[in-house]
Amino acid sequence: MNKKKVPQGTISRLFEYLRELKNLSIINIRTVSSSELGERLNLSDAQIRKDLGYFGSFGTSGAGYNIEELKKALEKILGKDKAWNICIVGIGHLGSALLGYPGFKDHNLYVAAAFDSDLKKVGRTVGNIIIEPIEKIKSIVSSKRISIAIIATPANTAQKVANDLITSGIECIMNFAPIKLDVPENVKVEDVDLSHALENLTYFANNEK
Amino acid sequence: MNKKKVPQGTISRLFEYLRELKNLSIINIRTVSSSELGERLNLSDAQIRKDLGYFGSFGTSGAGYNIEELKKALEKILGKDKAWNICIVGIGHLGSALLGYPGFKDHNLYVAAAFDSDLKKVGRTVGNIIIEPIEKIKSIVSSKRISIAIIATPANTAQKVANDLITSGIECIMNFAPIKLDVPENVKVEDVDLSHALENLTYFANNEK
Repeated sequence: MNKKKVPQGTISRLFEYLRELKNLSIINIRTVSSSELGERLNLSDAQIRKDLGYFGSFGTSGAGYNIEELKKALEKILGKDKAWNICIVGIGHLGSALLGYPGFKDHNLYVAAAFDSDLKKVGRTVGNIIIEPIEKIKSIVSSKRISIAIIATPANTAQKVANDLITSGIECIMNFAPIKLDVPENVKVEDVDLSHALENLTYFANNEK
Repeated sequence: MNKKKVPQGTISRLFEYLRELKNLSIINIRTVSSSELGERLNLSDAQIRKDLGYFGSFGTSGAGYNIEELKKALEKILGKDKAWNICIVGIGHLGSALLGYPGFKDHNLYVAAAFDSDLKKVGRTVGNIIIEPIEKIKSIVSSKRISIAIIATPANTAQKVANDLITSGIECIMNFAPIKLDVPENVKVEDVDLSHALENLTYFANNEK
């Protein structure tokens, strides 16, 4: 299976399917048809079959999907059956907040390291994580088997940090710095651009009356 | 002018045009044609003329745009010529970080109030902002002329908070809670969904090899 061929929309919907299957499982429902699942999510049954079709053949015609089996299959596809170590680079206001963000563990993500270039911060402990100097990115990413990095640095250092992370083997980056990172094709960047959202709201506030 | 008719892409590009005009202004350039501006931003001159056309007629054929004039016009359209008061609801990890977020003032946004439902937090000062009880949303939004609200509560209280804000006259919401808010048509919500970004990265980490 090549991830490049799976559309972004399909990936997002697989997470929706998984959440809904968990809801059904909690109320002891054992099987669900694509049209029932579609109705609950306001999607067509054809859409659901198409999305699942990227990953193989699930369910039996007429009987629908076995909820436990499909749940397990989706957890495996989506990486929800494992834990992932992440690191945070840039421990300013935002980075500190992220170090204490309780939402990570809902996604089986564990903050295993934090880095900052400011030597006054290095050595301090936030939560139970010691802030390390950015020179140690390579050795720690490797020794702690970190798969996902979060960049929470200012814009002017984000690209250098991204380069260091990529050289260290990181292929998944969540970027809070308000710049477009230049990365190789095999690296996935998810931008969380607060500026963009704030600009849209300011425009709307100015033009709403 | 009706904001509903202006496409989202146009609004985003207007902010790009404004940034680029400021860059040109700094190096003392006085006029720019749509094709020169387009070249700098990797956009066609027709696109630029079309985007600006939503807001009137700018520039003179042959002479291009007067940079100072277009800059001022865009600042006015985008609400960058005024300051906007914002409030933050939910002063947990994320809300606290946002209270100290230095990026707001780059957008002429000023945190004028903070609210939390936890009475242990109410009355505490973060930065120079006193945390108020959520029962005071209506009176404070009105007395401090707050235009934009940021919801940083857990998912299960976000809709109630949104309802309170909307009743208080708020029409622009930045939502960090991982739920889709149900709001009237005249209310603009910008979702910043960290879960969605994290899920995509987990999928990618799991399928990259």
